[in-house]
Amino acid sequence: MPEYKAPLRDMRFLIDEVFDFTNSYATIGADDATPDMVNAILEEGAKFCEQVLAPLNRSGDEEGCHYEDTVVTTPKGFKEAFAQYAEGGWMGLASDPAYGGQGLPHSLGLVIGEMVGSANTSFGMYPGLTHGAMAAISAHGSEAQKQTYLTRMTEGRWTGTMCLTEPHCGTDLGIIKTRAVPQADGSYAVSGTKIFISAGEHDLSENIVHLVLAKLPDAPAGTKGISLFIVPKFLPAGDGIGERNGVSCGSIEHKMGIKASATCVMNFDEAKGFLIGEVNKGLNCMFTMMNHARLGTGMQGLCNGEASYQGAVKYANERLQMRSLTGVKAPDKPADPIIVHPDVRRMLLTMKAFNEGNRALAYFTAQLLDQLHSPDESKRQEAEGLLAFLTPICKAFMTETGVEVTNHGMQVFGGHGYIREWGMEQLVRDARIAPIYEGTNGIQALDLLGRKVLGSQGKLMLAFTKQVHRFCEANTGHADFASQIAELARLNKQLGEVTARIGMAAMKNPDEVGAAALDYLMYCGYFILGYLWLRMAMIAREKIEQGASERGFYEAKLATCDFYFKRLLPRTAAHLAAIEAGSESLMKLPAEHFSA
Amino acid sequence: MPEYKAPLRDMRFLIDEVFDFTNSYATIGADDATPDMVNAILEEGAKFCEQVLAPLNRSGDEEGCHYEDTVVTTPKGFKEAFAQYAEGGWMGLASDPAYGGQGLPHSLGLVIGEMVGSANTSFGMYPGLTHGAMAAISAHGSEAQKQTYLTRMTEGRWTGTMCLTEPHCGTDLGIIKTRAVPQADGSYAVSGTKIFISAGEHDLSENIVHLVLAKLPDAPAGTKGISLFIVPKFLPAGDGIGERNGVSCGSIEHKMGIKASATCVMNFDEAKGFLIGEVNKGLNCMFTMMNHARLGTGMQGLCNGEASYQGAVKYANERLQMRSLTGVKAPDKPADPIIVHPDVRRMLLTMKAFNEGNRALAYFTAQLLDQLHSPDESKRQEAEGLLAFLTPICKAFMTETGVEVTNHGMQVFGGHGYIREWGMEQLVRDARIAPIYEGTNGIQALDLLGRKVLGSQGKLMLAFTKQVHRFCEANTGHADFASQIAELARLNKQLGEVTARIGMAAMKNPDEVGAAALDYLMYCGYFILGYLWLRMAMIAREKIEQGASERGFYEAKLATCDFYFKRLLPRTAAHLAAIEAGSESLMKLPAEHFSA
Repeated sequence: MPEYKAPLRDMRFLIDEVFDFTNSYATIGADDATPDMVNAILEEGAKFCEQVLAPLNRSGDEEGCHYEDTVVTTPKGFKEAFAQYAEGGWMGLASDPAYGGQGLPHSLGLVIGEMVGSANTSFGMYPGLTHGAMAAISAHGSEAQKQTYLTRMTEGRWTGTMCLTEPHCGTDLGIIKTRAVPQADGSYAVSGTKIFISAGEHDLSENIVHLVLAKLPDAPAGTKGISLFIVPKFLPAGDGIGERNGVSCGSIEHKMGIKASATCVMNFDEAKGFLIGEVNKGLNCMFTMMNHARLGTGMQGLCNGEASYQGAVKYANERLQMRSLTGVKAPDKPADPIIVHPDVRRMLLTMKAFNEGNRALAYFTAQLLDQLHSPDESKRQEAEGLLAFLTPICKAFMTETGVEVTNHGMQVFGGHGYIREWGMEQLVRDARIAPIYEGTNGIQALDLLGRKVLGSQGKLMLAFTKQVHRFCEANTGHADFASQIAELARLNKQLGEVTARIGMAAMKNPDEVGAAALDYLMYCGYFILGYLWLRMAMIAREKIEQGASERGFYEAKLATCDFYFKRLLPRTAAHLAAIEAGSESLMKLPAEHFSA
Repeated sequence: MPEYKAPLRDMRFLIDEVFDFTNSYATIGADDATPDMVNAILEEGAKFCEQVLAPLNRSGDEEGCHYEDTVVTTPKGFKEAFAQYAEGGWMGLASDPAYGGQGLPHSLGLVIGEMVGSANTSFGMYPGLTHGAMAAISAHGSEAQKQTYLTRMTEGRWTGTMCLTEPHCGTDLGIIKTRAVPQADGSYAVSGTKIFISAGEHDLSENIVHLVLAKLPDAPAGTKGISLFIVPKFLPAGDGIGERNGVSCGSIEHKMGIKASATCVMNFDEAKGFLIGEVNKGLNCMFTMMNHARLGTGMQGLCNGEASYQGAVKYANERLQMRSLTGVKAPDKPADPIIVHPDVRRMLLTMKAFNEGNRALAYFTAQLLDQLHSPDESKRQEAEGLLAFLTPICKAFMTETGVEVTNHGMQVFGGHGYIREWGMEQLVRDARIAPIYEGTNGIQALDLLGRKVLGSQGKLMLAFTKQVHRFCEANTGHADFASQIAELARLNKQLGEVTARIGMAAMKNPDEVGAAALDYLMYCGYFILGYLWLRMAMIAREKIEQGASERGFYEAKLATCDFYFKRLLPRTAAHLAAIEAGSESLMKLPAEHFSA
């Protein structure tokens, strides 16, 4: 299996050289997060992920979770690793100090999350879901709820879940059947069945705090009648837990991947629930969790992609097979290492370009998340607008390309890639859930194009394209990057035009939105990565000109940017053609004629 | 799990209406294969695959093969199913009547093979490898070898394997270490270890006939020193088997998919081997098997794609989720079936367009295989040339798109797609081996562009593009398809031009071939499917004009062709850009700088 090494150099390149986190931390009052402290945290996190989590990744996949009579057992070593995670204070790294957290910026939490997910995606699900639940309680819970739940979750003593999906509905939450009946003591009796609940039951924590969507008996139909409840596995008592609540795990799923993550059927049988936020506003509260979770899910594309790349590069340098077409490169060996072959390099560079591009996109987005805490309201609003536009793109583009990357990594290994012990196929399987959950990528695309872009009359897109426009204007005719700047400017203009055309068409026929959505999102993703690759390349060029010592690192950035513009960015043409095709060719075939 | 129904209507459309197999059967003297007989065989094959093989597909995946002390046990039911397969005469359907076969055309065998592989890909590996071994013995074996081995294999009493790969080499067969030492009795003592041997050991047949690549002690280095040997598990004796030979299974692999197919490490310890063909010409003999196997592997992309499509269409018609953006479509239900949503249709139509296009490509190619038996030498030569060009495209394009198709099928199911019991994720895992084995798709691409197209100074490509040219000329300005004809003609011309440019560049730098190869192959695949989709659509249009009763079937062809041209064929633009990018952006990064 590939041995994970946290890509600290690339992380620091983004944190220090591209996005200057130190400076932006200062603007949000996170002065504690000095470069020294950030470095120390990154190194400590890397050590933990490399030495504790990564070694449990293959065994966790082979062993999986086990279910017996409502009890779920995680694979060997997970319990101890989680205890170390909690003791190390990782759960509360970016949480509110008022409830025991360290109050460091969210962007730093995301970087640590990248390491965790790259070392062991399944393990990362347990803190990942907890962080989502903490975000919702933090934003919508009462002070008492925060004191009770947030503090324990911050400690890692209690973990969290999101209970949305039911057997008959995932995307369509308006039709959920779980019911919450008001009780005399102000609590609710929650009854129903939820499925696909990640971390719904396990042996890692003392208590599990379920955030459950349910309907009151008199709730309006559809999404406007959904409320959110805290339903703990054990009711809180004193400093710890008391009575067992009426919620239990009915079974766990057997899945393609992330096998060490328990995916549970959860049965609620008049379980005691506590309303969080307002009645019938549950979906809004849940969106807080979901926005958090969507970026986290996008990260999984990067995480699995990074792990796969590390394995593939190592293998490509070691595996000897055939001679280079331009002449023998390793005369002392029976064949050349396969990294000499152009097609192997095509796969490796595709992986590298997506991974490093996706990392830039994620950190760029995380920096905006930090800015939601800016004292300057205009900064907060700007960040909010950009996040609305970027979040569905992060989720869907990073996971689509994550699946592509892990498949390339496996392909580099040839037949060995298909064999479990090498660990490359696990990364494909683990990565494959990410385009599905937290809203399928098709739903992300509708959110982007329908709700965000067209729903704001283009404003949410313009906020971003204006930034790119200014960047292109400032660099037109750049000595080293003139052609790439011109290409980026062309795509930028094209994006505005095609958005306007879709908007016009959609006024006549709403199916035009659904017909264009996924290709539109992918177009945006390629375009945004182009922008970020150029920003990275320009900095790398400067560093080389300044005589930086790590010349190889910076030259790799330049070469990868060049590769990206020449071989990946042109995919926008195919997506554009699909967008322009409109809805007719999708909608004209009657449903009954899809099968002969 | 998706219930498999053989797509007989679509098969007949190609066999009868598009390619007129009856007429071409007559030209190769296969007059027995009358339309009635062909139909009867297809229906019998469909029944067997639907009722016997398909029900073993999920259980075979869950159970896998088991190994204990050199013995391999296949999953429950496989032994009985294989006995039925053999008794039904399916093994010898297209084999030489001189050795017990039914002598029907290869194209018919391929259609049956499609059903077998769609119903149960793992099961299909056992007859698939046997057919490959039979092809090699048939082409290169002595009369005595044919009498001994072919007859038993035709009966299904004995099965076959291809033993090429060794731990240190797969692609690079020139460096194999397995040795064959001549013995006094004219046989050879074969020693060495072969890995990834599909059907290398199992409990389905009385004997297993290994075709093994090995080197004589005095053989020249590299691929010119490889010979091919028959090494049976049991030495033949009388009408059956005698002494156990010195070959045994050391272990089986734990794989991502095709788990019911035994992938074996085979140890040869002075095993008695019999030379097949000439000394040091083993690779040529193996190519006979490999060409056969490459089309068969390409078919696996279609097989898994078809099974996935059937599951996805059914689910999309049944699963209720959200309302259509253009208004409620199923007012009596809590939500509309998801097939109303444009993005779901995008996935389904992508699947349909690739599957039916790939089926057309496979049957088109199979018809050429039949023509290798034409009494007319010019016909044989023409077929050989086209096959040389098409075979690597079938293998790589059909498997790349097969992986895409199965992933769409899984995505249509949302979260349920990731759960094993639904069977959709198995199809992704089973399909994923096909781009790897029988020569990775990267190797197929090099074979196509380097060996075939440039190696023939473009002649092997021209034979095909001339056919398309004539088709476009004959249909320029067609009342219904003028724009598609024009687009096809443009791509045809572009293919010639870009090939010439690569050829020029490759004279200066051989890496230009490897840099362009995979995108070149994919470009060719999209282009060829465009040609075949147009041929299908034009026939469908005629049938509608003639008032054919199955109007829905033909209209689906028109709609899918339209979809293909509007939304999939434009991907050629991205591949063209990647080809035109040349090798520089791939080769300039030093190997040591791929990692930071």
